[in-house]
Amino acid sequence: MANSPTGDSGTDRLVRILDTFTPTRTVQTATEIGRRSGLPSSTAHRIVNELVDAGLLERDEERRVRIGMRLWELSTRSSQALRLRQAAMPFMERVQARVREHTQLAILEQDEALFLERLSSPESGSNITRVAGRLPLHASSSGLVLLAFGPSDLQERVLSSRLAPLTRATLSDPAAVRRKLAEVRRLGHAIAPGYIEEVSTGIAAPVRDETGRVIAALSVVLPRDAESDFAVVELHRAAGDIARSLGYRS
Amino acid sequence: MANSPTGDSGTDRLVRILDTFTPTRTVQTATEIGRRSGLPSSTAHRIVNELVDAGLLERDEERRVRIGMRLWELSTRSSQALRLRQAAMPFMERVQARVREHTQLAILEQDEALFLERLSSPESGSNITRVAGRLPLHASSSGLVLLAFGPSDLQERVLSSRLAPLTRATLSDPAAVRRKLAEVRRLGHAIAPGYIEEVSTGIAAPVRDETGRVIAALSVVLPRDAESDFAVVELHRAAGDIARSLGYRS
Repeated sequence: MANSPTGDSGTDRLVRILDTFTPTRTVQTATEIGRRSGLPSSTAHRIVNELVDAGLLERDEERRVRIGMRLWELSTRSSQALRLRQAAMPFMERVQARVREHTQLAILEQDEALFLERLSSPESGSNITRVAGRLPLHASSSGLVLLAFGPSDLQERVLSSRLAPLTRATLSDPAAVRRKLAEVRRLGHAIAPGYIEEVSTGIAAPVRDETGRVIAALSVVLPRDAESDFAVVELHRAAGDIARSLGYRS
Repeated sequence: MANSPTGDSGTDRLVRILDTFTPTRTVQTATEIGRRSGLPSSTAHRIVNELVDAGLLERDEERRVRIGMRLWELSTRSSQALRLRQAAMPFMERVQARVREHTQLAILEQDEALFLERLSSPESGSNITRVAGRLPLHASSSGLVLLAFGPSDLQERVLSSRLAPLTRATLSDPAAVRRKLAEVRRLGHAIAPGYIEEVSTGIAAPVRDETGRVIAALSVVLPRDAESDFAVVELHRAAGDIARSLGYRS
């Protein structure tokens, strides 16, 4: 991908275009993509046409553009995301069947919690998490697990950044987050009552590889004042089963 | 993405690189990617470096390259694949819990059946289907549903191409496939005994939108000689529930 006169590569332009699509903005015109990506309109139209020709983007009947099945296929079929969630699925299903609330798997990605999978049943309560969506490390139970057991430079970077509150319960003071991380390490799991939504409590446990490194967080979202002990036990059991299913001896 | 001297665009080169990653080839060196993509080695190394810098590819400890979490995220979070499988998941879980065999969701993509989801339990039998993997239309039960209820130009194109047998049971004669497609339309579902693997039978039912157009196939894989009636009933019920969950009135 040759560099453009402005010095950014074709790869940069591709990322800027793909980045304009979000969980709530799934269809756009080429003009909207140009505006949101900050690319010159003619450049955006040309690249969108190329991507449509290759099947990486698709047009609907109104010539609006969306992410193509071919791009999903190419980026999923060999991905670590797929390997991890396939190993986790049978145990996530067990957690979901027994706890009967949203059950989720997240990894650390660019200083946020990226959710690889979410299982829900119709009777589950409120939950803003989405597959391939993200939540802040300091606010979500999954994020607190990934942060508490993560590298110290990650902790320092996150604690020195702005810790935006999502609700009145979210910890937004670095000292309070630091105490919470110590609690997570002591308990072996994270409990985040009302941090993301006032009405719910997130509970997360770490999935570890053979060396003890935390590679993912398995979590459930319960109603705010629900009893958490049963969910904690199920999460720890499933996290161990996922690690073994990935071939890690415990 | 500017055109290269050979006339192919940056998008073409990107697709050629991504296409070298498969469900069974998840990690490669940049040199291997160059050879398998047919790109000049220096070009392949340069684009791989750009893609790694953007997070679309990732390097492991041995400097081998794999699909990046960032690419999976960008291509999944707004995709139709995700929307369809999220709507289908609760009903796929019900089928899997009741039939207790592999349960799968496929769509038509480039004249093949592309699998968006697969649920399996440890006790399920043999199954070569993979998430984001494909199977031929004439051989798989999902493919036969997508073909039987698909546009006539698709049927003519597939029936005039080589119908490769995967087992001794696969229908590879155009007249036999045509009769099978008539049977699928008459029954309302497809039964493919031993077509993909000698030891198993695929059963698939169509998921239809409001206009009656088939948008996906829901399937299970049973041991070859298992009774199919219960699975057929569960598949039809779940296919209707998925359509309603997508907002289609039946």
